[in-house]
Amino acid sequence: MTTVRSAEILAVGTELLTPFRLDTNSLYLTRQLNDLGIDVRSKSVVPDDADELAHRLMVALDRVDLVITTGGLGPTADDITRDVVARVLGLSLAEDAALLEHIRARFERRGMTMPETNRRQAMVPAGARLLDNARGTAPGLWIADGTRVIVLLPGPPREMQPMFETLVRPELEKLSQGRKVFRRVIRIALRAESQVEEIAHPIYSRLAHGSVPIETTILGAPGWIELHLSARGDQESVISPALDAGVSELAAALGSSVVSIDGRSLEEVVGGILLSRGWRIATAESCTGGLVAGRLTDVSGSSGWFVGGVVAYANEIKLESLDVPAALIDEHGAVSEPVGRAMAEGVRQRLRADVGVAVTGIAGPTGGSPQKPVGTVVVAVATPHRTTVRTFNLGGDRPTIRQHSVVAALELVRRALLADAPA
Amino acid sequence: MTTVRSAEILAVGTELLTPFRLDTNSLYLTRQLNDLGIDVRSKSVVPDDADELAHRLMVALDRVDLVITTGGLGPTADDITRDVVARVLGLSLAEDAALLEHIRARFERRGMTMPETNRRQAMVPAGARLLDNARGTAPGLWIADGTRVIVLLPGPPREMQPMFETLVRPELEKLSQGRKVFRRVIRIALRAESQVEEIAHPIYSRLAHGSVPIETTILGAPGWIELHLSARGDQESVISPALDAGVSELAAALGSSVVSIDGRSLEEVVGGILLSRGWRIATAESCTGGLVAGRLTDVSGSSGWFVGGVVAYANEIKLESLDVPAALIDEHGAVSEPVGRAMAEGVRQRLRADVGVAVTGIAGPTGGSPQKPVGTVVVAVATPHRTTVRTFNLGGDRPTIRQHSVVAALELVRRALLADAPA
Repeated sequence: MTTVRSAEILAVGTELLTPFRLDTNSLYLTRQLNDLGIDVRSKSVVPDDADELAHRLMVALDRVDLVITTGGLGPTADDITRDVVARVLGLSLAEDAALLEHIRARFERRGMTMPETNRRQAMVPAGARLLDNARGTAPGLWIADGTRVIVLLPGPPREMQPMFETLVRPELEKLSQGRKVFRRVIRIALRAESQVEEIAHPIYSRLAHGSVPIETTILGAPGWIELHLSARGDQESVISPALDAGVSELAAALGSSVVSIDGRSLEEVVGGILLSRGWRIATAESCTGGLVAGRLTDVSGSSGWFVGGVVAYANEIKLESLDVPAALIDEHGAVSEPVGRAMAEGVRQRLRADVGVAVTGIAGPTGGSPQKPVGTVVVAVATPHRTTVRTFNLGGDRPTIRQHSVVAALELVRRALLADAPA
Repeated sequence: MTTVRSAEILAVGTELLTPFRLDTNSLYLTRQLNDLGIDVRSKSVVPDDADELAHRLMVALDRVDLVITTGGLGPTADDITRDVVARVLGLSLAEDAALLEHIRARFERRGMTMPETNRRQAMVPAGARLLDNARGTAPGLWIADGTRVIVLLPGPPREMQPMFETLVRPELEKLSQGRKVFRRVIRIALRAESQVEEIAHPIYSRLAHGSVPIETTILGAPGWIELHLSARGDQESVISPALDAGVSELAAALGSSVVSIDGRSLEEVVGGILLSRGWRIATAESCTGGLVAGRLTDVSGSSGWFVGGVVAYANEIKLESLDVPAALIDEHGAVSEPVGRAMAEGVRQRLRADVGVAVTGIAGPTGGSPQKPVGTVVVAVATPHRTTVRTFNLGGDRPTIRQHSVVAALELVRRALLADAPA
């Protein structure tokens, strides 16, 4: 029986070689294949050019157990994948009468006559197994060639993904013989990547050489770091405890800046704490302009713990909608700890919430000064018994500063909630 | 002299073959090369494996004028690009004393001693030209091999991009002999892709076969469609007017749903109209939870025309902060045209703005009913002389409905502004 351990992905389509289209299928397929313990050895984008595709296909078939192509199964002259694969494998192509009827019926159900060009889609290489396309006319194809497997999938993700999940993955599961990838993720807020690296490196270097080898990948975004741990094998009962032990060790070393180890986002963690206490939160935003509220309401069910918010962009709104004293702005400026504090306390009171969070800052590119340069951002959190305020000096362009500010606000809420727990 | 017309991009790095990392360099390089009139014939991701990379490189050198690699120039044993390229081209590697000093000095400036492993980065293939790395230790390399060019660039985008722009692009401009790509983009809101396709197809099919052939690509997002037009050649004086004529013809056919033909985003267009009239806008959001305000404040300088907003997630905020009569909610429900209208007019008055925009809807996955299913979204815009209200029935999941709602709100503001222009 064929064993599939290695794969190559070929995305077919000249349009994927322009700056307008990104081949997202390969990333999806990489994750799916990795989950099955199959290594992706290479992924390539190739144009709608028969010689080029034939060449790439031959190279791939020489090197891996499984080749997956996406795209080029449509009805036009540009759609060459079916023909090229048949030619390279030396398989004859014949019209499949039942498939042709199926395609024709699909058009008729929509009150249309099948264009003659779509006949091409009923051509099937000898010995190929058809993969039904629930969302389009182009069927996929599964071809076993000696010890190798070639799978042809359609290009549109909404057709490709369900086809892969329902028809391809179960077959590959058998051929990869239950060797799977198990994953965990540790999410960390407001720590420098170098700090995290310094703490985590000795631990994950050791984990990589344990009896269950664990691979660690670090991903970063403004104010945000994720450690992705993975291990592969067929014995979940051995691998899961090893992964959990690794996660615990890393989380303990990284301390209180760890937001979650169970896959939850920062806003889900914040919402979970609020919900468990029956508390509700309100937002007061200047430089983030509504993005903190936007992130909180990304969470389905946020109406259980999110009241609402005020976007106080103009200073007059800070006075009128948040009861910030005008004298405070005159004395300290709109971007200052006293004003941030007043905004958080003001929105908490005005919207009758248990927690108020405020952000005021200078996202740039203009508006900075030597005392308060672009990137100066004040975050304040008012909980029932105290208000905490912190000033950040963030780097980067306007979108980066705004994103980082959103993470800072949500993370300070999380920390304030933990520090001000009900007795 | 070498003429460069075709290129292949090889992204080197085993980490790019995991689901965690996407090779974004190739998209950037594709745009850059296309701008210079250079066709990208293929792009591949290859692992840190010397045999594999050597094989891919030989294949590429056989087929194109220019091969660009990214990644694999670091100091570790995994960083193999330099060695493999030298081997494939039959070039000897020698330590460059000046480069070694340069790297050493870079470490010393940061108060560190250069680790011995970094010596590898001073190895240079015979005849290669060094490309200075302003942001890292790994220099790039430019190698001319007969009529072909091989360029080795570092993997981190923040190192790669400035190196490409300052040192590689000017050289390639000479070799591509001034053949450039010229582009235009038409942005369209709240039209179905099939409608746009039906109107635009006959026009862009003809443009593709004009004396200046124009290529058109259609990109879609929830509520949003972009037509990207491009033409290549060396005579801007001929190409630009042809592109402009194509854009005008398409824009005229597509009518009032065209948001911009000059590259501006929807929020920039809305901000531009407000600024030109000296008007200010305020937002009242329920299901979009602050995202409309967030999009408006993405625009630098938005404080000139954006006052602020209210995120009225709980009904009590709709009453207290927006003066929506409780009876209206009782009678029609929070997601209804009368409540949307009251929210838009309420925020306009309370925040003393010239324009108020409101969104109230059901983003799901819960909260729908047979009368008002998930995806029911009401948008209202109050301008000085009238209020317009519209109900949408949007498809997709929660994030899709929210994104689509934001576009709907901003686009209805744009249309309301055009319909209610000052005399």
